[in-house]
Amino acid sequence: MSTVETQPGSVGVVETRYVDLPDPVPLDCGRSLSGVVVAYETYGELSPARDNVILVCHALSGDAHAAGTSAAPVAASTRDGFAAEERDGSAPTGLGWWDGMIGPGKAFDTDAYYVVSTNLLGGCSGTTGPSSTDPATGTAYGADFPVVTVADMVRVERAFLDVLGIDRLAAVAGGSLGGMQALEWAVSYPDQVDSIVVIASTHALQPQGVAWNAIAREAIRADPDWQDGHYYGTGRRPDAGMGVARMVGHITYLSAPALDEKFHRRLQFADDLRYTITEPEFEVENYLRHQADSFVRRFDANTYLYISRALSYFDLARQYGEGSLEQALSGVSARTLLIAFSSDWLYPPAGSLEIQEALQALGKQVELHVIDAPYGHDCFLLEEARQTPLIRTFLTGSNP
Amino acid sequence: MSTVETQPGSVGVVETRYVDLPDPVPLDCGRSLSGVVVAYETYGELSPARDNVILVCHALSGDAHAAGTSAAPVAASTRDGFAAEERDGSAPTGLGWWDGMIGPGKAFDTDAYYVVSTNLLGGCSGTTGPSSTDPATGTAYGADFPVVTVADMVRVERAFLDVLGIDRLAAVAGGSLGGMQALEWAVSYPDQVDSIVVIASTHALQPQGVAWNAIAREAIRADPDWQDGHYYGTGRRPDAGMGVARMVGHITYLSAPALDEKFHRRLQFADDLRYTITEPEFEVENYLRHQADSFVRRFDANTYLYISRALSYFDLARQYGEGSLEQALSGVSARTLLIAFSSDWLYPPAGSLEIQEALQALGKQVELHVIDAPYGHDCFLLEEARQTPLIRTFLTGSNP
Repeated sequence: MSTVETQPGSVGVVETRYVDLPDPVPLDCGRSLSGVVVAYETYGELSPARDNVILVCHALSGDAHAAGTSAAPVAASTRDGFAAEERDGSAPTGLGWWDGMIGPGKAFDTDAYYVVSTNLLGGCSGTTGPSSTDPATGTAYGADFPVVTVADMVRVERAFLDVLGIDRLAAVAGGSLGGMQALEWAVSYPDQVDSIVVIASTHALQPQGVAWNAIAREAIRADPDWQDGHYYGTGRRPDAGMGVARMVGHITYLSAPALDEKFHRRLQFADDLRYTITEPEFEVENYLRHQADSFVRRFDANTYLYISRALSYFDLARQYGEGSLEQALSGVSARTLLIAFSSDWLYPPAGSLEIQEALQALGKQVELHVIDAPYGHDCFLLEEARQTPLIRTFLTGSNP
Repeated sequence: MSTVETQPGSVGVVETRYVDLPDPVPLDCGRSLSGVVVAYETYGELSPARDNVILVCHALSGDAHAAGTSAAPVAASTRDGFAAEERDGSAPTGLGWWDGMIGPGKAFDTDAYYVVSTNLLGGCSGTTGPSSTDPATGTAYGADFPVVTVADMVRVERAFLDVLGIDRLAAVAGGSLGGMQALEWAVSYPDQVDSIVVIASTHALQPQGVAWNAIAREAIRADPDWQDGHYYGTGRRPDAGMGVARMVGHITYLSAPALDEKFHRRLQFADDLRYTITEPEFEVENYLRHQADSFVRRFDANTYLYISRALSYFDLARQYGEGSLEQALSGVSARTLLIAFSSDWLYPPAGSLEIQEALQALGKQVELHVIDAPYGHDCFLLEEARQTPLIRTFLTGSNP
């Protein structure tokens, strides 16, 4: 992994690489996947003892490019059908999605740790997903891709680390769906994880979150251009449906006060109503449409469907505890850092509190910090300065 | 108006009637509408002095059938193109949408008051709207229907009451969009309104509410079956898009705790995941789809677009106060009853508080009651028992 230092605190220019998993991956749904490719990036240096690895897991719309600046996106276009043919761009470009948290001296300090980031199973940025070619047919999976779970994602991450020769993780960290993966790691591989950092996440989405995900999927499914999930190569993509899905998501990631502070009720054209039912009239309407337009250019609708489904399924108590969260967490040995945000109504602090209480009842090492911040769920990407000392202190405790 | 008492507290069997407005109605957008029809129902008896009239205004998806049980829906099918050709049903059927609040001895007591309810301008249940026939072309307006505002709705209500020979209103009452109409009445016709009852409403939607409405419109607009708003008579309707719009609306009308209490994370098939990205898996997902399916059978998508737009435009401070709510309300002479609900995050109590404070600063008669109830915005339709004494006491004060 060649990284070039470009500015203080940055991991520099990075490149997304790819690994082929040698064995088929068994899935919760009963099927298995052969020929799985995993896209990944690494930052920092692996210690000779291979004991300084932090796995960073991304949220719904993320990718392997968590930190630094992307090198030219060459590799992806040869490995990823969606990237090459369906997207305007291809591999991740620009700054990594968690660049403020990963780098020399940052929360995940690359002077001390070897940080590994992968695109998750079902993704559309290099790791095998519905836009990938099914080796059995030679065409894209589309909706024939198996339905995957967070446990399946973690199983792929485990197999991927095997290829890299990494047995133990000093930490697994992530926000939102990334935090679910961290929790899943602690439960599924208790002997291989020293600590987990679970940010703006939960052990199970509340029903309102399940509903938002269902609405997003319905918007995509209802778009005739979705074509029952087999739109690759047809020249038609369900951009309209995914645009609506993204708008719903976007509003749920922000708090009402944050939207009010950012847009008020400002009109696009001063106080001059245009009397239109189809065009944006308020600034917030224009913003939403812009967010949707840029998202559909970089993201695959089927991946959105599959990952949204995995988010809804995730439920530690159901999966591992016969309905009891405490029972599900009984085998955890990782130290746990939980961070939640006061204004996050999609993943409210109550969910983190339930995890804390279950772990405390079991006598496990756990700390919860609820940060009072106004930006809703998006805080986990925005409130870097206030998360950094919490995470650094916590990690120092695990690997002094 | 023939009403037959069918059970205690009921106004009995009622019939929706229709009035043709004699004059064109000027609209805020600069256009005017000729040949406007207004669908209405009445409950109780008009006093000889014609001083006991309460106008009840409905919310986004309501109609003129506010109380009692509908007679056979004959008239509507001859007056309303959408009702006759496009909908499975036609005129409103079943119990009125505010039956718990209107009747002998109820909040709006038909032993004392003559309660009048109309379908609003732009509606799809008898009053002229986008599904009505444009007299200039002989075909349905579709998206050529003028963009209407809450002020336009109230202007039509005023013209309709002129036809009935009613000058003054003892009260104007409504929830949500209905409350906006009541506020608009108090501002636009201050000498003709004795009191207003404004429930779960606001003087201007917050930006998050504007965003939800924009997403709903986007879902309809993105449906190819919308056909730029000219789908009548084509055999194709944007049911899929309006289904998504309704799902979004439905979740915003409920609180997260209410959804949790009602559905938890229960699966449709016990604890047996089916691993599907397209079918409902959780009970809340099935519920949403059912809500959407039943809604698209009874409601017109263009009406949804137009009314949603009117909701977003409504802004008393912008319309009448050069940005100042106090200035906008300075001419109000009606006594004002405001009711809000603690768990209503779409029309949060803060909006009602702002109205109260502005009216108090002006020395007007106003009272605000925030009811602590868990069901979100839908409380205005559900919490009848707790609203009733507030409304009865308030109305008695105005018309002892």
